[in-house]
Amino acid sequence: MDKPSISAHISHQYNAELEDIRSRVLAMGGLVEQQLAHALIALVDSDIAMAERVLATDYQVNAMEVAIDEECTQIIARRQPTASDLRLIMAVIKTITDLERIGDEAERIGRMALQLSKVGTLKKQCMELENMGAQVKKILHDSLDCFARNDPQAALQVARTDLQIDRQYESIMRQLITFMMEDPRSIPRALDVIWSARALERIGDRARNICEYVIYLVKGKDVRHTSLEQIEQETLRS
Amino acid sequence: MDKPSISAHISHQYNAELEDIRSRVLAMGGLVEQQLAHALIALVDSDIAMAERVLATDYQVNAMEVAIDEECTQIIARRQPTASDLRLIMAVIKTITDLERIGDEAERIGRMALQLSKVGTLKKQCMELENMGAQVKKILHDSLDCFARNDPQAALQVARTDLQIDRQYESIMRQLITFMMEDPRSIPRALDVIWSARALERIGDRARNICEYVIYLVKGKDVRHTSLEQIEQETLRS
Repeated sequence: MDKPSISAHISHQYNAELEDIRSRVLAMGGLVEQQLAHALIALVDSDIAMAERVLATDYQVNAMEVAIDEECTQIIARRQPTASDLRLIMAVIKTITDLERIGDEAERIGRMALQLSKVGTLKKQCMELENMGAQVKKILHDSLDCFARNDPQAALQVARTDLQIDRQYESIMRQLITFMMEDPRSIPRALDVIWSARALERIGDRARNICEYVIYLVKGKDVRHTSLEQIEQETLRS
Repeated sequence: MDKPSISAHISHQYNAELEDIRSRVLAMGGLVEQQLAHALIALVDSDIAMAERVLATDYQVNAMEVAIDEECTQIIARRQPTASDLRLIMAVIKTITDLERIGDEAERIGRMALQLSKVGTLKKQCMELENMGAQVKKILHDSLDCFARNDPQAALQVARTDLQIDRQYESIMRQLITFMMEDPRSIPRALDVIWSARALERIGDRARNICEYVIYLVKGKDVRHTSLEQIEQETLRS
């Protein structure tokens, strides 16, 4: 074999490794999406079996995080990536941290569902969460889609929807506070609903983080701690 | 200049860069520690000026995170680190993410302090938090100390103290729930105290994460999602 074909071979393998990393992140994302969906069903339908399923799959998400992290470290050591390849690795390392924590939040919701199903759930309040849950599922799915398609423009649009989730959260919180003041005996159970709403709100924040990594990955600019308007004007238009 | 001295020169520079990264992480840690200390004073003493100071310094922590992250990426691209140098970089990337989020939690406590000082604080309940706050300050300080001294054995001991913080949190939550049930008008204010307690509990978790990165950094083994007993038996004794 002559030299160019060896290097073509190496480059082919290297690309396959990077593609493998990308698809593993998406597989992990898919699992976390599923966890969130199950946790919401468990909460709204007081479905104990579903709640237990969420708790039982958490270790898989954790294992995926550790494995992908390890693969990223090995690629850095072996391939010495630079420029956009290195940005991909950095974005992946950050994305899987957020995905793992989204899994933790889903687990938290599963735990609350389990607790509520034992002491008697707050049906109406949990239904309120259903709408917020649907939006949170969507932002998570869409953020992973932006990562899959390498699309920073779409990532900015998706990041924007987190503001709606924050507003929904505020509204649910106000309702729950009023409810607790009117019926103090409901406080312990209402707090479980509050923790679930809080977990959903945090998942929205983390999906927004994933969108920011996509912008970094494609545009090469770190846009964390930057307003969405600034990102649009300074990063995406250039 | 002959070859060995050029490479000695490069290696000297490289070491200086790695040392610089370490000291920047510690500087960022120091700033976050200060933010937490100020937030706790603001909460316990209803000190508005102190609360505003916490909110005003958050951007510094964010900027430090972005700058250190950038430096890590550049070192990977330029120096192509392997083995323990690469582990240091990976541990730093993760540590600063947690430090930044600890800063966010401190900011949250500052915000609650501001809100409580406007509507009338819950003196007694905030005092309860003071003890928990002292322990959380300690675990944060100690985790940074383990990082500074590269000490995995100490890191395991420090990680253990997070369990005490969790127990304190549970106890404070129980007290606050009872208090809200006895005096429902206090609910909105009690919730602000609850959010602060929750923020402190999360800071404990993140300090524990930092301890785990120290173990990874020195021992080369990823110990996240592993019980403290397992870490002791399988990683630190080997």
